[in-house]
Amino acid sequence: MKSLTEHLWFNTKNRIDFINITDKVQDLIKKSGVKEGIVLVNAMHITASVYINDAESGLINDYQKWLKELVPMDKNYEHNLTGEDNAYAHLMRTIMGREVVCAISNGKLDFGPWEQIYYAEFDGQRKKRVMVKIIGE
Amino acid sequence: MKSLTEHLWFNTKNRIDFINITDKVQDLIKKSGVKEGIVLVNAMHITASVYINDAESGLINDYQKWLKELVPMDKNYEHNLTGEDNAYAHLMRTIMGREVVCAISNGKLDFGPWEQIYYAEFDGQRKKRVMVKIIGE
Amino acid sequence: MKSLTEHLWFNTKNRIDFINITDKVQDLIKKSGVKEGIVLVNAMHITASVYINDAESGLINDYQKWLKELVPMDKNYEHNLTGEDNAYAHLMRTIMGREVVCAISNGKLDFGPWEQIYYAEFDGQRKKRVMVKIIGE
Repeated sequence: MKSLTEHLWFNTKNRIDFINITDKVQDLIKKSGVKEGIVLVNAMHITASVYINDAESGLINDYQKWLKELVPMDKNYEHNLTGEDNAYAHLMRTIMGREVVCAISNGKLDFGPWEQIYYAEFDGQRKKRVMVKIIGE
Repeated sequence: MKSLTEHLWFNTKNRIDFINITDKVQDLIKKSGVKEGIVLVNAMHITASVYINDAESGLINDYQKWLKELVPMDKNYEHNLTGEDNAYAHLMRTIMGREVVCAISNGKLDFGPWEQIYYAEFDGQRKKRVMVKIIGE
Repeated sequence: MKSLTEHLWFNTKNRIDFINITDKVQDLIKKSGVKEGIVLVNAMHITASVYINDAESGLINDYQKWLKELVPMDKNYEHNLTGEDNAYAHLMRTIMGREVVCAISNGKLDFGPWEQIYYAEFDGQRKKRVMVKIIGE
């Protein structure tokens, strides 16, 4: 079994931001030399997500509006009594997910036609990271 | 390490449809010869889901009603300005999830008593597919 | 390839309950002898979740309030016509997720600073379990 563990670092300009990381994950698969296996891509922070969907700016705006409806940002959350103001970010990340697991076939991400891997930041403007773990042969 | 990669194809009668694929995944595990490992089952399209829950028709109706409350189908989504009318389907799929990862033990899906794998289609009536990737020994 | 399959059992005091299982998963990784690989942790029941977020009691209260808003407990769900009264629990579990897949590096959970694995019970007060499946080398 081969494995590779790497991190992608982010420091987003906006508090909420969406970044396409598909090419970076593909580059790491190439670097790993794994031809058949899986790749796990997960946020290492609990106010951010990794998810798979469309690289279309309108949809990314729709996600942000929708998440603000499901998770009002300025409600009286108990978590914020600790001195934090990011309770909303923990809940938004729960909707969008922590991780994706993707197939690697013939040394590449084995993806459908429109699948793209995104990093979704909900409490950014500071250094945060994503883990990429590749296992296979 | 053994691996097997296969696809399940769907062309649903209804635009929104739920299909139990547990037996098909189990058959592919048998075909793979893997006794200990994992199976990744994921939608390859970004308006469909794979999830695990109950094979009970009332619950499947409840899911559909609930998703239409969390994600109104006919709202003014920006994504639909591209000419699409399926923004809702991208959001519903986000709630239900893209993929499941399941344990294989003794050559079988290692499942709890009521676990069933479903394909949930949110923008069907055309050919779409699910990937099944099995790795192990 | 090494593998280990174990179960964690729960019988919660409350119908809805959240339990930190991080240390138990870490102990099983040690037991497995796997240094590089992945661990799958999933609920084996379809009214419970495994998710990763903060070990902070205020946030756990926020999760419970928020889930009750997204999923009213006493609505007229079709699933409950079967004699069940737990349709809400199937939907809440869908929001929180069935499973997590985590990286193992150097024989340990390869986690960010605040990541903790939780079992979330939505229909407890009876014996239920979580599977821990470890594969790697």
